[in-house]
Amino acid sequence: MEYTLSQICSITGGRLVGDGSVRITGVGSLEGARPGDISFVKGEGLVKKALNTRASALLSHRDIPELARPLIISDNPFLAFVRLLEVVAKEKVGQPMGVHPSALVSKGASIGKDVSVGAYSVVEEGAVIGDRVTIYPLVYIGRGSKVGEDTVIYPQVSVREEVIIGRRVVIHSGTVIGGDGFGYLQVKGRHVKIPQVGTVEIGDDVEIGSNVTVARSTLDKTVIGRGVKIDNHSHVAHNVIIGEDSMLIAYAKIAGGAVVGKKVMIAEDVGITDHAVIGDGCTIGGGSNVYKSLPPGAIVWGSPAKPMMEEKRLQALLRKLPSMREGLKQIYKRLKEKGVLEEDLKI
Amino acid sequence: MEYTLSQICSITGGRLVGDGSVRITGVGSLEGARPGDISFVKGEGLVKKALNTRASALLSHRDIPELARPLIISDNPFLAFVRLLEVVAKEKVGQPMGVHPSALVSKGASIGKDVSVGAYSVVEEGAVIGDRVTIYPLVYIGRGSKVGEDTVIYPQVSVREEVIIGRRVVIHSGTVIGGDGFGYLQVKGRHVKIPQVGTVEIGDDVEIGSNVTVARSTLDKTVIGRGVKIDNHSHVAHNVIIGEDSMLIAYAKIAGGAVVGKKVMIAEDVGITDHAVIGDGCTIGGGSNVYKSLPPGAIVWGSPAKPMMEEKRLQALLRKLPSMREGLKQIYKRLKEKGVLEEDLKI
Amino acid sequence: MEYTLSQICSITGGRLVGDGSVRITGVGSLEGARPGDISFVKGEGLVKKALNTRASALLSHRDIPELARPLIISDNPFLAFVRLLEVVAKEKVGQPMGVHPSALVSKGASIGKDVSVGAYSVVEEGAVIGDRVTIYPLVYIGRGSKVGEDTVIYPQVSVREEVIIGRRVVIHSGTVIGGDGFGYLQVKGRHVKIPQVGTVEIGDDVEIGSNVTVARSTLDKTVIGRGVKIDNHSHVAHNVIIGEDSMLIAYAKIAGGAVVGKKVMIAEDVGITDHAVIGDGCTIGGGSNVYKSLPPGAIVWGSPAKPMMEEKRLQALLRKLPSMREGLKQIYKRLKEKGVLEEDLKI
Repeated sequence: MEYTLSQICSITGGRLVGDGSVRITGVGSLEGARPGDISFVKGEGLVKKALNTRASALLSHRDIPELARPLIISDNPFLAFVRLLEVVAKEKVGQPMGVHPSALVSKGASIGKDVSVGAYSVVEEGAVIGDRVTIYPLVYIGRGSKVGEDTVIYPQVSVREEVIIGRRVVIHSGTVIGGDGFGYLQVKGRHVKIPQVGTVEIGDDVEIGSNVTVARSTLDKTVIGRGVKIDNHSHVAHNVIIGEDSMLIAYAKIAGGAVVGKKVMIAEDVGITDHAVIGDGCTIGGGSNVYKSLPPGAIVWGSPAKPMMEEKRLQALLRKLPSMREGLKQIYKRLKEKGVLEEDLKI
Repeated sequence: MEYTLSQICSITGGRLVGDGSVRITGVGSLEGARPGDISFVKGEGLVKKALNTRASALLSHRDIPELARPLIISDNPFLAFVRLLEVVAKEKVGQPMGVHPSALVSKGASIGKDVSVGAYSVVEEGAVIGDRVTIYPLVYIGRGSKVGEDTVIYPQVSVREEVIIGRRVVIHSGTVIGGDGFGYLQVKGRHVKIPQVGTVEIGDDVEIGSNVTVARSTLDKTVIGRGVKIDNHSHVAHNVIIGEDSMLIAYAKIAGGAVVGKKVMIAEDVGITDHAVIGDGCTIGGGSNVYKSLPPGAIVWGSPAKPMMEEKRLQALLRKLPSMREGLKQIYKRLKEKGVLEEDLKI
Repeated sequence: MEYTLSQICSITGGRLVGDGSVRITGVGSLEGARPGDISFVKGEGLVKKALNTRASALLSHRDIPELARPLIISDNPFLAFVRLLEVVAKEKVGQPMGVHPSALVSKGASIGKDVSVGAYSVVEEGAVIGDRVTIYPLVYIGRGSKVGEDTVIYPQVSVREEVIIGRRVVIHSGTVIGGDGFGYLQVKGRHVKIPQVGTVEIGDDVEIGSNVTVARSTLDKTVIGRGVKIDNHSHVAHNVIIGEDSMLIAYAKIAGGAVVGKKVMIAEDVGITDHAVIGDGCTIGGGSNVYKSLPPGAIVWGSPAKPMMEEKRLQALLRKLPSMREGLKQIYKRLKEKGVLEEDLKI
């Protein structure tokens, strides 16, 4: 990248204070920035740290003369910085590369305008790839699957047959969409596979991390709602429905048929049991196992998950357990000595 | 799909009640079925729900005249429906596609009859692929590995060298069979790799989900017994042995050298410690960490895992901990007041 | 493999006792070895087992005449055996295969001497591949990434753009290096992606298992120090720094911005919270969730993690909880009977 600070200001919005002709060639954190970089101060707490940065310019929430360098001032300097990062990231990606000669696009597949399909990617019969989609190398798109406009699919992703993917979706490497759900019928002590003939539907603006699995449903479909963000190593089982704008941090384990509401925040390494219904706006703390449905807005933690405050109290009580036992033993001893208690107790 | 109900009855078995000439064009759940679909009622509890289905015909466990549509009656309508799903699934897959011109099958590899090898898949020297095997695109089969008859390997699977895979095995996308076990020797504070020169052997009728890892053994072999089913994101470490017909739900973490018996049921997110021996027929509840060997038939839960009833009692006791502490404090207070207890206790 | 025992002795070092002309054609464990194999006895505890092995020769820590077969004696027979395994493993791999005609190496990429690039692997513009690197088939190396000398990358690995990988690194199948970190800004109830424009730097002698993810940083870089070993299914989030010679067993979950010191031992299925600082030489027990920073040398376990001994005491106390409650109820009953306590308590 190379911009003048004035050009950056027109990207980020905000008010320029200082020399707009300064040349900016990179972005960095306050600690990591080098001369030529621009960084940001998102609040008063970081002003002190900003004094030591080597960045040549800063985005900030107010005019801070002691920083002694040009500033772009706006109400939300972090968001302004994100707008700049979007430009930087786009520059890195470059122009659409078209369909690579080695990409195997089936004759019966439909490819939109300005689509990139990378080397050795395979697009099967009947697949529909929307305008401006970027498919990196070594990706598999199964028969009849649809990929919406402006979606990006990174290398080594596998999208099985008849999956529907929305617009502006991002899917990271190693992720598998539409693998069979895990369903068996017990017949005479053996596991008879229940063929999984349903599918997966992913809404617009979803982002799915690396090495995630989203299983196809037995019948009907597994659904990921608009705007949902799913972190690495997560697992969305068959027939799950996840509501709009929910967020699943790494290693979310959503078991078969669970229904997760909208704007639910699921911290790392959380398990949700099959067929549980999680209400809109719930927050589930890290490492929790949710064995029951939750009403809207519930804030839970622990294993089994319970109201956050209850779990915190339990954690505090557990720390008191040694002194509770000592106290109980002491009381027992005295009561025996004083003859209040005759029987022998194991405590 | 398109069948008459009579044709479906000959697939599923059972007794046809009503018009056998009805045309069936799909399968669905009671809620999701559309006109033209067939669905199923697997017990009395679902009869009410079935009254509202839009399915054109149903498999059921008895004649239910109030459903007012043609039925196929059998003792196990769910199993009958599964038989139909098998036909539907087979139809979707279509005919074997042969070896794609872009598949790289080494000259020294042996390929059976009616085998499909998908685009850009690589089959290395000395590999042996049995009759009717389906290898999807972008699969890697290492040197000298054997894949048994009728096995299906989905896109992006990696099978390393000298692995043996049985018949009718299914391996889903992103799964890695035969990666090195995680073994190091500590020498002067550094980790010296123990080369993993053993292998993996997978029995007949095994199914392995997406993004699973089965590590090759240090010496000898890692073994997955006949009929075992392994869900997504599971990890079978080096030198593990898993007995026939066991089931590992998602995120099973079986550490090095553990021996799991036959017909063991391992719920989601269970860890089994290295070299533990888990007896036949054990059941291990979700989220458990098993740090010790278990006798046959044990039913355990928790972390550390304990007999299921004990863990449930513990969970119940933990819920009583606040009132236990309050009670203890009250007793302490009274005993102090009455002079039974002189000393000060922290409770 | 085929060596005389004398030849093996020159590989392993140590003192040969017995017939050096014995032909050795394989390696095995004491139980698994067949005639022709060599195995090892690493201490007195295994001598009895060694009496029954079918191995034709043994590495051992002392002369053991009752084993009645040729021995190679050294102070650390396991390490000596590892040295032999290194030769066996190298033999299996064979000679460098060169760049396969189907590998797509961009014109702007730089390829060192004696490099192997497997079939259908893709090396993008500006990538630099060091001497003697082995890239297996179906690997993706992104734009501008660097792979150091003697590194091995197994099939189906995805290395995104601008990643730096050291020398003698091993990366197993299904692993993703440099996928985007999981970072969003909340704006009016929606998640706005923070583009991740940083990178990943992996030191020399690192080994990374199968289906691992190492995320690229938002700005600056995610760092894996020299000699670190990471087991399958682990997750190193954006901006994490892991110190030299640390070890992460399977399913390590290191959240964003955490700093892990040198020689830290992280057992299986451990979570470390974002921005925690874990001191050098810490040991974290299996299944722990570390919610706070740890001083150097800390030994912790549990969820939340606490000093190992404290967690063990807590586990012991929990087992006593039923008898504590019974004792407390008994005391309560007596105190009521004796009139010491008037009030009704729920215990």
